[in-house]
Amino acid sequence: MAEDAARLEAVLAEALAEAPLDGETARPARLLDAMRHAALAGGKRLRPVLMLEAARLFGRDDDGVLLAGAALECIHCYSLVHDDLPAMDDDDLRRGRPTVHKAYDEATAILAGDALLTLAFDLIADPRVHPDAAVRLDASRDLARAAGLGGMAGGQMLDLASEHATRTEADIRTLQAMKTGALIRYAARTGARLADAGDADLAALTRFGEILGLAFQLADDLLDVEGDAAALGKAAGKDAAAGKATLVALKGAAWTRSELARLVDDATALLAPYGERAAPLLALARFVATRDR
Amino acid sequence: MAEDAARLEAVLAEALAEAPLDGETARPARLLDAMRHAALAGGKRLRPVLMLEAARLFGRDDDGVLLAGAALECIHCYSLVHDDLPAMDDDDLRRGRPTVHKAYDEATAILAGDALLTLAFDLIADPRVHPDAAVRLDASRDLARAAGLGGMAGGQMLDLASEHATRTEADIRTLQAMKTGALIRYAARTGARLADAGDADLAALTRFGEILGLAFQLADDLLDVEGDAAALGKAAGKDAAAGKATLVALKGAAWTRSELARLVDDATALLAPYGERAAPLLALARFVATRDR
Repeated sequence: MAEDAARLEAVLAEALAEAPLDGETARPARLLDAMRHAALAGGKRLRPVLMLEAARLFGRDDDGVLLAGAALECIHCYSLVHDDLPAMDDDDLRRGRPTVHKAYDEATAILAGDALLTLAFDLIADPRVHPDAAVRLDASRDLARAAGLGGMAGGQMLDLASEHATRTEADIRTLQAMKTGALIRYAARTGARLADAGDADLAALTRFGEILGLAFQLADDLLDVEGDAAALGKAAGKDAAAGKATLVALKGAAWTRSELARLVDDATALLAPYGERAAPLLALARFVATRDR
Repeated sequence: MAEDAARLEAVLAEALAEAPLDGETARPARLLDAMRHAALAGGKRLRPVLMLEAARLFGRDDDGVLLAGAALECIHCYSLVHDDLPAMDDDDLRRGRPTVHKAYDEATAILAGDALLTLAFDLIADPRVHPDAAVRLDASRDLARAAGLGGMAGGQMLDLASEHATRTEADIRTLQAMKTGALIRYAARTGARLADAGDADLAALTRFGEILGLAFQLADDLLDVEGDAAALGKAAGKDAAAGKATLVALKGAAWTRSELARLVDDATALLAPYGERAAPLLALARFVATRDR
């Protein structure tokens, strides 16, 4: 996972080089710096790593998949930059470093988020992603749907509206399927798609992505309640302080831990037909369910 | 132009319907409302109309081009929503109505902008845009480059940095080629591309788009100096108050008016080989150069 994260970092660094591409006029230094601050800060790179492992399950392992993973990571990083803004979650720290609006200013942070979001749709169109333009275009359109109004951005809207509001379990599940689930589902599904997986395999990996998304969110909510700010590199207890609706708040930590174990079991059963080849994906599922930061 | 703008509005309204698409979970009402506020407010629809007319010059006139125009308009509208934010230009009025952060709140405005930007890359992938997926993918990637770090978003960064700074004519031209020029150039070029124009025609329409972009910006700067706030539907004199570098400020109103006339002459000469068929595009150029709001 660390090796893949390093390869991904290199692809992102190349995408954020100084020289303008064909069709670009110039790359303003301050905006580029702010984008690098947001995107080249290391991190687990869970989504691109998941995409890579999903592609590997079907025999594909090359830099083209990494480019699609970099596109997805641009979307993830832009969402963090905008979520951290004073008008949103108002966070000063991210992975132990100043957030973009603290290191630069709000206007630059808004633009850096916008430009990272936009860059994703340049990267995903790269011919190396897949030889068939129709497949690349599907990956691009699916990314837009996972990230936009009916996906991540919509989930963030629901999340903001959920502060100090009463929410049912179904409401929270919808919110989380959108806010964090959609991109993780996309990662697993698109990795398989870029490796030309058949319909049944694509359905299995899509479901695997959904399970991983659920586990990720439950573990995240648990960490917000029980985690250590120093290990997290960001403030803990923020969700509870904001009165945000989470399943942990609704159903308790014990239920959450047993649900996480159940999700890992589901993932294991789902990928059993792939045998030993699915070991990296299952290791990822266990990592997500039990991580402490 | 009014008829095309109305057709465009209908396509945008359909793209902003309540029902989630395949791959979307739900479309949260508040976010959807804010996106509609931003995108369905009428306006000149200059960029989509230009794209339509460029396609018509090469014999294509159907709803597929309108969809690409709607994608482009989503990018334009998102940029207005984010530019109007308190951390950016801090505007309360847009086309005579409250800006999105005034009508809703800042967080919703940030998300509505993000979601409109993202929606553009869903719309441009629609099979009706062009039968060849490779052409649609090029249109998508070109849109990302025109809108992002090396285009519009980068131009906005330069514009913010130019406040109260000394800028040369070359600096201002680079800034404007990015901030407003890139999308207008894209409109003319992509209209021709979607109508399967050959290389020479594509080059001519790209150049036409560049000329129109220059004229648009000069006319806009002139309006900011000389325009009437009521007719504009927004505050006048803001650029001068902010100390923003414009060619009007640098070279005066008389020079600007003669430059605008020269650009219209250039456009006329450029499109002369197309004869009467280019009349709508030239009317658009004259409209842009002489508009009073």
